[in-house]
Amino acid sequence: MTVDLEPATRAAVLVEALPYIQRFRDSVIVIKYGGNAIAEDSGVPGGEAAEGQALASFAADVVLMRSVGIRPVVVHGGGPQIGELMSRLGKVPAFRDGLRITDAETLDIARMVLVGKVNPDVVSAINVHGPLAVGLSGADSRLITAVPRDASLGFVGDVGNVNPTLLLQLLNEELIPVVATIGADESGQAYNINADTAAGAIAVALRAEKLIYLTNIEGLRRDVNDPTTLLSQVTLDELDGLVADQSISEGMIPKVQSCLRAVRAGVGGAHILDGRVRHSLLLEIFTAGGVGTMVTPD
Amino acid sequence: MTVDLEPATRAAVLVEALPYIQRFRDSVIVIKYGGNAIAEDSGVPGGEAAEGQALASFAADVVLMRSVGIRPVVVHGGGPQIGELMSRLGKVPAFRDGLRITDAETLDIARMVLVGKVNPDVVSAINVHGPLAVGLSGADSRLITAVPRDASLGFVGDVGNVNPTLLLQLLNEELIPVVATIGADESGQAYNINADTAAGAIAVALRAEKLIYLTNIEGLRRDVNDPTTLLSQVTLDELDGLVADQSISEGMIPKVQSCLRAVRAGVGGAHILDGRVRHSLLLEIFTAGGVGTMVTPD
Amino acid sequence: MTVDLEPATRAAVLVEALPYIQRFRDSVIVIKYGGNAIAEDSGVPGGEAAEGQALASFAADVVLMRSVGIRPVVVHGGGPQIGELMSRLGKVPAFRDGLRITDAETLDIARMVLVGKVNPDVVSAINVHGPLAVGLSGADSRLITAVPRDASLGFVGDVGNVNPTLLLQLLNEELIPVVATIGADESGQAYNINADTAAGAIAVALRAEKLIYLTNIEGLRRDVNDPTTLLSQVTLDELDGLVADQSISEGMIPKVQSCLRAVRAGVGGAHILDGRVRHSLLLEIFTAGGVGTMVTPD
Amino acid sequence: MTVDLEPATRAAVLVEALPYIQRFRDSVIVIKYGGNAIAEDSGVPGGEAAEGQALASFAADVVLMRSVGIRPVVVHGGGPQIGELMSRLGKVPAFRDGLRITDAETLDIARMVLVGKVNPDVVSAINVHGPLAVGLSGADSRLITAVPRDASLGFVGDVGNVNPTLLLQLLNEELIPVVATIGADESGQAYNINADTAAGAIAVALRAEKLIYLTNIEGLRRDVNDPTTLLSQVTLDELDGLVADQSISEGMIPKVQSCLRAVRAGVGGAHILDGRVRHSLLLEIFTAGGVGTMVTPD
Amino acid sequence: MTVDLEPATRAAVLVEALPYIQRFRDSVIVIKYGGNAIAEDSGVPGGEAAEGQALASFAADVVLMRSVGIRPVVVHGGGPQIGELMSRLGKVPAFRDGLRITDAETLDIARMVLVGKVNPDVVSAINVHGPLAVGLSGADSRLITAVPRDASLGFVGDVGNVNPTLLLQLLNEELIPVVATIGADESGQAYNINADTAAGAIAVALRAEKLIYLTNIEGLRRDVNDPTTLLSQVTLDELDGLVADQSISEGMIPKVQSCLRAVRAGVGGAHILDGRVRHSLLLEIFTAGGVGTMVTPD
Amino acid sequence: MTVDLEPATRAAVLVEALPYIQRFRDSVIVIKYGGNAIAEDSGVPGGEAAEGQALASFAADVVLMRSVGIRPVVVHGGGPQIGELMSRLGKVPAFRDGLRITDAETLDIARMVLVGKVNPDVVSAINVHGPLAVGLSGADSRLITAVPRDASLGFVGDVGNVNPTLLLQLLNEELIPVVATIGADESGQAYNINADTAAGAIAVALRAEKLIYLTNIEGLRRDVNDPTTLLSQVTLDELDGLVADQSISEGMIPKVQSCLRAVRAGVGGAHILDGRVRHSLLLEIFTAGGVGTMVTPD
Repeated sequence: MTVDLEPATRAAVLVEALPYIQRFRDSVIVIKYGGNAIAEDSGVPGGEAAEGQALASFAADVVLMRSVGIRPVVVHGGGPQIGELMSRLGKVPAFRDGLRITDAETLDIARMVLVGKVNPDVVSAINVHGPLAVGLSGADSRLITAVPRDASLGFVGDVGNVNPTLLLQLLNEELIPVVATIGADESGQAYNINADTAAGAIAVALRAEKLIYLTNIEGLRRDVNDPTTLLSQVTLDELDGLVADQSISEGMIPKVQSCLRAVRAGVGGAHILDGRVRHSLLLEIFTAGGVGTMVTPD
Repeated sequence: MTVDLEPATRAAVLVEALPYIQRFRDSVIVIKYGGNAIAEDSGVPGGEAAEGQALASFAADVVLMRSVGIRPVVVHGGGPQIGELMSRLGKVPAFRDGLRITDAETLDIARMVLVGKVNPDVVSAINVHGPLAVGLSGADSRLITAVPRDASLGFVGDVGNVNPTLLLQLLNEELIPVVATIGADESGQAYNINADTAAGAIAVALRAEKLIYLTNIEGLRRDVNDPTTLLSQVTLDELDGLVADQSISEGMIPKVQSCLRAVRAGVGGAHILDGRVRHSLLLEIFTAGGVGTMVTPD
Repeated sequence: MTVDLEPATRAAVLVEALPYIQRFRDSVIVIKYGGNAIAEDSGVPGGEAAEGQALASFAADVVLMRSVGIRPVVVHGGGPQIGELMSRLGKVPAFRDGLRITDAETLDIARMVLVGKVNPDVVSAINVHGPLAVGLSGADSRLITAVPRDASLGFVGDVGNVNPTLLLQLLNEELIPVVATIGADESGQAYNINADTAAGAIAVALRAEKLIYLTNIEGLRRDVNDPTTLLSQVTLDELDGLVADQSISEGMIPKVQSCLRAVRAGVGGAHILDGRVRHSLLLEIFTAGGVGTMVTPD
Repeated sequence: MTVDLEPATRAAVLVEALPYIQRFRDSVIVIKYGGNAIAEDSGVPGGEAAEGQALASFAADVVLMRSVGIRPVVVHGGGPQIGELMSRLGKVPAFRDGLRITDAETLDIARMVLVGKVNPDVVSAINVHGPLAVGLSGADSRLITAVPRDASLGFVGDVGNVNPTLLLQLLNEELIPVVATIGADESGQAYNINADTAAGAIAVALRAEKLIYLTNIEGLRRDVNDPTTLLSQVTLDELDGLVADQSISEGMIPKVQSCLRAVRAGVGGAHILDGRVRHSLLLEIFTAGGVGTMVTPD
Repeated sequence: MTVDLEPATRAAVLVEALPYIQRFRDSVIVIKYGGNAIAEDSGVPGGEAAEGQALASFAADVVLMRSVGIRPVVVHGGGPQIGELMSRLGKVPAFRDGLRITDAETLDIARMVLVGKVNPDVVSAINVHGPLAVGLSGADSRLITAVPRDASLGFVGDVGNVNPTLLLQLLNEELIPVVATIGADESGQAYNINADTAAGAIAVALRAEKLIYLTNIEGLRRDVNDPTTLLSQVTLDELDGLVADQSISEGMIPKVQSCLRAVRAGVGGAHILDGRVRHSLLLEIFTAGGVGTMVTPD
Repeated sequence: MTVDLEPATRAAVLVEALPYIQRFRDSVIVIKYGGNAIAEDSGVPGGEAAEGQALASFAADVVLMRSVGIRPVVVHGGGPQIGELMSRLGKVPAFRDGLRITDAETLDIARMVLVGKVNPDVVSAINVHGPLAVGLSGADSRLITAVPRDASLGFVGDVGNVNPTLLLQLLNEELIPVVATIGADESGQAYNINADTAAGAIAVALRAEKLIYLTNIEGLRRDVNDPTTLLSQVTLDELDGLVADQSISEGMIPKVQSCLRAVRAGVGGAHILDGRVRHSLLLEIFTAGGVGTMVTPD
């Protein structure tokens, strides 16, 4: 897949990436890779081939980041994939206020899909490049201690605590942790946890340099209906204003809240990128003109 | 659950365990924990409560081993649990020569059950005692590189190679690896691998002191039909003889072959224990009168 | 010396010890092993065989503690043994206020007995189990800097300073320090130091988890004359009260004062145990129902 | 100096560099940076501005290599610059068989120019990017022990021995050594050493992955007079043939001999690049279509 | 060069050195070795042989210091040697207020002489004893960041910042750094820096135990014209008084100011020694009766 | 005790010591310090003051050795001191073939004197200079495993094995081990071991650079009765000849045999020095003209 370019142009791209490579060396970057991003990328239901390509491209980007000394941590969801298995098992999803009501059987299904299917798919896509990725769930080494959110929702949990020890050990071994966001309470009871929220909490616990959401939108807009108002950078205060104005679409609220919390807690910056654009990760990190929206401290 | 004992008796048990604790300090012990062992222990189909107790007891034993400086590695299967999800999805299991024919859908199911259900169940049972266990599949950090066994069996693999680096890193951090035996080839394609075989290969790669199979039989017998001929110890040559004599039941063949290979490749000893006896692990390791059969070098 | 027990009972004892083993892993425990405890155990003068058994049993307990990751430090006295050599050399012991008046010749005798006889006896008893113990006197690497107590007592010293560096180095090598409490001032002049007091000062300097006195009494009593008033636990304030009430026998005062000082200075707890009961150390540390008296922070 | 490119093209260049970045991570690459290359690049005598730009571009390339985990070592010459100072001091250069006859005064001039001018110029150009480069001469820590070549040449030396310890220490600190090839014998007497030869010897001593000569020619040609016969790759045996055929121009002989020796002694590969092409280093290392000639093992 | 002495006398000297050897073990000692000291020692212009002897003697002293665990850092000047090359190149030195006006050409000459001649001469003299010394200029690893002193002086710089990292790394490898005091600003522009001032700044940055100036005077005098008023020790306050009284000769002012600053900033003591006395360094450091003047905290 | 010397002479002694200091840095030197040497030095029975001075001088020498990076290990005897306590206890020494017949009581006395008196005296003399020395007996950490020599001699042992681990750990902490040569067998039974022999075995186990015997003779003589035939150096073969000729006095045989064995087993050299000459250790190690006899490999 060599591109046809003048040597000088080719060299210029490499040289332009230099200050970014220096700046982010040894930095932890937490990337939320959405189940939606995967699914939408393929464009059609069951579009496995396309999904595979998107995943392979994502994996290559993550490996490139690591190759230049960045320490990526991948956190993933898998909503559509959970829905698919539920329907195959004749189970009707139920939601309340946008949250999936999770009885014991649903939890079992979510766990099998996230930990037993999506997670190893991501791990394997990365490991085509070498023995690099290690799949984790929140139960491993008590990475995510869950607290129940609301009894009526069943086994839906919030992040009570993130224990970053295992992640740091793996990062020190230059491995890439890939996290499925099933947590457990101290009795070992599992809970399903929103992956957007968990990604933010992990970024804070790791004092990450960046928290990046790969989504299926271009970025945030000042006017949600006007594509020309795409925001390439926004401060915390401005983003608070957009939330208050209801300029943020409902589906983006957990991501946006998580960005606000993470940057306020010391994460260097948060990004909402279009995961459908190939290599948007690389373009955001290694070039001056990023893509998507960057949330910065005030 | 304090037992009512004279202080002197209590002390005597602790003192008797001393030479074993000293001897196995820092030793790696690989324990194959069978899906069958779990299921049979409960005695009745769907006996979840009983299974939970057996698992909790197993977990406590593993944690005790680690507390005294042993480095346990748990490898597990999950045949019955895979069968159960297949039947719920209306999929009819097919076998040939005792091996499950594994098409893409069956592989997906096996992966979800082993990696997404049985593995986190074992991890969570251990982590009730602290942030101790980490769940792995063979795809993580290319732990198990699979090679296809026979095209007509589909995605059934053999162990091509075990890369023990990640296991050793986790053991050095005093963590307990729990391994689901799904491997992957270099292209990232997953394969289902027999857990008995994988446990033996892992023991060899780790230069383990012991390889222990927790089964649902009392041990090996000289005469398979005569319970009074239980063997408490058997050498490699004797065991070769028993295999040649067809004195080993068919279901035990993979375990027995794996014991032979592992001890011949340098593992200190292999054990076939009755997983239905509570704390049989502790009794085998820490007391003079073990339970079950021990395979020793000639 | 295998005890005849049901496997289940045997396993239950091991399992009961689990939380204690976990809790005290890597903890430093300072054990004062009294010259009296040794002598009284034999019950009869010259009862060498019995003494040897008590010492062997004590040594086995210390080695078991180390086997499960505890870091024991042994501090010993040797009053009766000093008296014996003095009498053989025709030297009449002189005391004032319970303290031995120590002229140069007496100091020489004390040093030879403590450093050259009792200390290597304890070291050798432990080293039957391997190259584990190292004998030290307070002069080694200036472990205990002595200050003279009172000119009229001669070479009787107090602990001026404990330099724990050497102890920590040996503990890091997983060795068991055995300390004879002869200190030296900066000019190299030796002093005899009360072993009860020295044990407490060493526990403080090492930030020990426990300070344990093995004595020839059952423990402290609320009413010193009433065996039914044995205290299994006592707080610092309560113990101050008992001292004020003169409910503590004179011989126990240095131990009790040392317990109070050590726990007030941050040692986790102090214990007064009956050294005549075999394995009382193990029973106190590894079982719920300890023996003797435990001094706890308020 | 941002280039105007489609994001996809930009990403493609980064992605193409990936396998090379992975492959050369932690590899030592020795780069001979010629005094000629600097001088010819400017095109005109005294063309300081142009020289400065070429040097800045070279420095940026070296820093980029380091940013992605390569360990570059720079070895430089300075013939034209030595000639210039000699002429200012009214000293007439004398050569025999292409080697500069070096009396004590000439040696002094060579040392001042190489160690006191060219070397700090290269160091400073790199250190614009941070505290990265450290200038060395062969006398530092006895890096290069010189042996006299031929009494009639004066203080012209050969490499007797390379002591790589200091280079390895600096590389371990992620520093970039920049070496002026003045060596010293054991009495401390300095000698001028051919930089092409020294670069090869250093590459061998460091077990380098690559040895790269930045020259003022495009590369080696099969027919030295026919620019269309440029060789992009050549094996050791083929190169021996070209030397035997006298197809190598005289000025290239030391470089070619050094390439042959280094690759025969275990260096992974040697390159003769056109230093006049901006970023030829990057293009050779990080892209599939290198520039210049690569010498590979047979 | 064995001295003829009684064994007892010989032993006495070694024994007398003991407390000093113990006291300065692992201490950093910064030694300013002046261009003047070298030149004056020879007594006659061009007295190369004598200079060589003085340098060899100095080098032997520095190596002895290192042999007993001291960490010496040598900082050198080279004024006379710069003057000599300027005159050979027909360049007339210009001074203002005792500072050399430094145009681009003069800077080039200073750099070549200091970095390319004096520095490797000192390094080579030390390395006769082994691979011990490493020559550095202030540009290496941005050791000395220069700031321009006064535009009208040209490229004369002050010490803006000392980055001691590289020095500490070399000292940890038991190497002896030898520093030429050419600094660079962040753009890489070089500046000539007064070596007396730089030595003091380096001593402060390294938290040195001692800062020693080897000069061509006996030491400071209370009355500059009266040799009998030599001061063997002087406090900061007393020295301030001498400066205020104009009792310090002009040429000594930068050294004296640097001593005052360094000791006020935490350097243990500063010394002004007579570099013309062989082994004055050793006598000052290892014997009770030092030579020259010691500046101590009040 | 400052000696009155010209500065230049003083400096010359220090400078002469330089090559020796460099050469022996980090070398292990085992010094046998004899009970006889101590006793004879005082010249008169009970000459405690003189003994104290000799010991203090010895201690200062050992500390000086350590100060310059040498790793000294002291092994001591104590024959005269054992005899003294035996006589005070009314015990008549019995010898056979020059070896003390050692019944249980004699062993007890030897242990008390060596471990409890001579050893701490040596340790304390060294520790006047800081927390430097640690006293050990052969029982500590199973340093010397003893084997019985001859049943009729009682508890007289030979060195079965030296376990240098503890010595190496202490040396790595820059501590000075002081060893009393009481060994123990695996059952913990103590044995008295000839200190000359033990010193040699320890030197071999530590791969020492030198083994030094401090004795009460000037050195070996070619003709034992002719003081003018003192040998300053002797090879292994020559020394074999002297033993065969019976030119070695009986009392020196164990030392001489031990020298032969140690140098044959790889110790760099062995020395027999006159311990009565103050600082003979320093003079031997740090000056060209040593004192006493040096045994060198052929």
